Amino acid sequence: MVYKELLQGGEKIILVVVDGLGGLPVLGSFTELELANIPNLNSLAKRFPMGALESVGAGITPGSGPAHLSLFGYDPLKYIIGRGILEALGLDMEIREGDVAIRCNFATLKDGVITDRRAGRIPTEENRRIVEKLRSISKVEDVEIIWESGKEHRFVMVLRGDGLSEKVLETDPGKEGEKPIEPEPLDPSAEKTSRILKKILEISREILKDEDRGNFFLMRGYARLPKMEKFEEKWGLKAFGTASYPMYRGLAKLVGMYVPKDTPDFDAEIEEVEKNFENYDFFYIHYKDADKAGEDGDWKKKVLALEKFDSYLPRILKLGGIVAITGDHNTPSLLRSHSWHYVPLLITSLKAGYPTAWSFTEREAIRGSLGIRKSYELMPILLACAGRLKRFGA
Amino acid sequence: MVYKELLQGGEKIILVVVDGLGGLPVLGSFTELELANIPNLNSLAKRFPMGALESVGAGITPGSGPAHLSLFGYDPLKYIIGRGILEALGLDMEIREGDVAIRCNFATLKDGVITDRRAGRIPTEENRRIVEKLRSISKVEDVEIIWESGKEHRFVMVLRGDGLSEKVLETDPGKEGEKPIEPEPLDPSAEKTSRILKKILEISREILKDEDRGNFFLMRGYARLPKMEKFEEKWGLKAFGTASYPMYRGLAKLVGMYVPKDTPDFDAEIEEVEKNFENYDFFYIHYKDADKAGEDGDWKKKVLALEKFDSYLPRILKLGGIVAITGDHNTPSLLRSHSWHYVPLLITSLKAGYPTAWSFTEREAIRGSLGIRKSYELMPILLACAGRLKRFGA
Repeated sequence: MVYKELLQGGEKIILVVVDGLGGLPVLGSFTELELANIPNLNSLAKRFPMGALESVGAGITPGSGPAHLSLFGYDPLKYIIGRGILEALGLDMEIREGDVAIRCNFATLKDGVITDRRAGRIPTEENRRIVEKLRSISKVEDVEIIWESGKEHRFVMVLRGDGLSEKVLETDPGKEGEKPIEPEPLDPSAEKTSRILKKILEISREILKDEDRGNFFLMRGYARLPKMEKFEEKWGLKAFGTASYPMYRGLAKLVGMYVPKDTPDFDAEIEEVEKNFENYDFFYIHYKDADKAGEDGDWKKKVLALEKFDSYLPRILKLGGIVAITGDHNTPSLLRSHSWHYVPLLITSLKAGYPTAWSFTEREAIRGSLGIRKSYELMPILLACAGRLKRFGA
Repeated sequence: MVYKELLQGGEKIILVVVDGLGGLPVLGSFTELELANIPNLNSLAKRFPMGALESVGAGITPGSGPAHLSLFGYDPLKYIIGRGILEALGLDMEIREGDVAIRCNFATLKDGVITDRRAGRIPTEENRRIVEKLRSISKVEDVEIIWESGKEHRFVMVLRGDGLSEKVLETDPGKEGEKPIEPEPLDPSAEKTSRILKKILEISREILKDEDRGNFFLMRGYARLPKMEKFEEKWGLKAFGTASYPMYRGLAKLVGMYVPKDTPDFDAEIEEVEKNFENYDFFYIHYKDADKAGEDGDWKKKVLALEKFDSYLPRILKLGGIVAITGDHNTPSLLRSHSWHYVPLLITSLKAGYPTAWSFTEREAIRGSLGIRKSYELMPILLACAGRLKRFGA
């Protein structure tokens, strides 16, 4: 794209992502945003331009991966973040270029046949104990093996080394009473990976042989990072990202943002931004609670989550720079899930457009002067507002 | 596109196409929709989200072919339905993959020169009589020849067999006093087709030699079906289509919908849908009268046509499922023709968005929460509303 040639210095940019921001009518045709008491957001809506964003395309409900990539300025149909990587990010694992991340399930094997694909959903503590044993497999050939426990029977394995590939057969036959599938290569480029996985399985069987239930494991969702330019390279911004959930921290790290640890809640996140404000050009701040409440189908809780977010706004606005407030996707409590609908957007700069709204709502957002755009178009708009894009052509 | 991987089961979908739905101001700045007494549509507008659609692109006035393909979810710039095929569909002919459909005109030939390119616009009955004679040419080599009378001097010939091509020279020289052009191949792949057409012309001259006026015919608009996935394959919906005009029935059949015969009017169409509602996932219902009135430049007639449509709505809504009400294109009586303007859209589901309108009009539609979209984006949105699209990415 042409943007790279146009980059120049400018103001700081803050991207506030209210996860699951928008909704659908829940009561007498009002959405959670319309029902919430959000004086700070409503005041901004009267003073600044609004608009709406779409992550991927018509009718497509995005997961957190594509939704965030799009906000960071990457077309999510070009850069696919595989299941294994997201799972690893959710466990706060670091993923580097070339790594292969794999979702694993403990399973019970008897006479070579799977009798339980989830090892009786063993408790997380048991999972931790067994994964600790597996950590003795830390290297096969020149490949480093990294293990991390998830919940119940789930864990993640990451292979790190040269010449690895995700093009390997998944080993889960999908039902009990069958033999596990061998991790055969699906492509000649995956021969090394296949050989290493077979070796790992062989050693694991020995290590796990005395386990009752988790005496084996199945592998799915092999994934490598897509080749992608780092955020700083792409947009010329030294970037800082903060979130209280590991997956969002992971997504920020994926694109090369600096992400501090120890941000258990939104308060801690903002504190980190405050402390680091001088040292970066761009800040991504993630607010999770609206999405959680939406997923629970609890509109009252979502209203409260939005109100709580609103109360933090003065602190964010005090930081300075251009602030964009939007979501990665909507999570209407009506649907109890992410949705495909346009996500409200506001930019706290009169350089971004003119105010059109009376309140911060979905209905006002779609009529705003920023128009309706793809989420991955937000970054260049923010750069423009921050004075960071030169004129194109003379 | 990514949609195919996301398909799953869900609710039924009804697509109601009001041909020529929208208009332009005709009286003191009001459109036909604004002037019409349409209580059912206006009530829906208050309760459900609206939006607007564009079939092809800025300023492009679509014919019925591209306008319908776009509504069925096919980009009309990628899938071109040639003139010969549309003409054949308008005569209720069936077109199969590989067929070549040709628009033909009876013409008068004297001493090898065309003296009348339209054979004096012979009456349709005379056309029928002569076409019946031509039906004796039912096979040349291994190719089946199918003939169908149109109006006055027009008829359609369809070639059915292997290895046919539309890349043949049109035989109409465009003016009287010239010799007809020979149907020479424009491409080596069209040699067989050219040979067969020449043979047909040779036999026809003998058959038609005693005709006064229609003793010859000219061939134009050779067309084959574009390679396109069937609707059911593309969207995972078992589809039923109904229309009172052959061309629209033909367009539905082209994409593989089941289309009942004997639907002479809208009443009969709805009755067919009622009878078959249990057996299909998707229903396309076509309402013609608004377009006809618009083409006539008669805004009062268009108002009446819209009012008549409105009166059928309760029966359609009673069917169940998600109902989308839109047009293939607008036909403003001001223009006496199709137009390129955004076509109003309403979806009877609060999962589709939030209400923003006070009445079912063009002005309200473009500000609706469904936004302004390409017509071929409607299908994925309907799938999403019907719960038929899984999440994209994790």
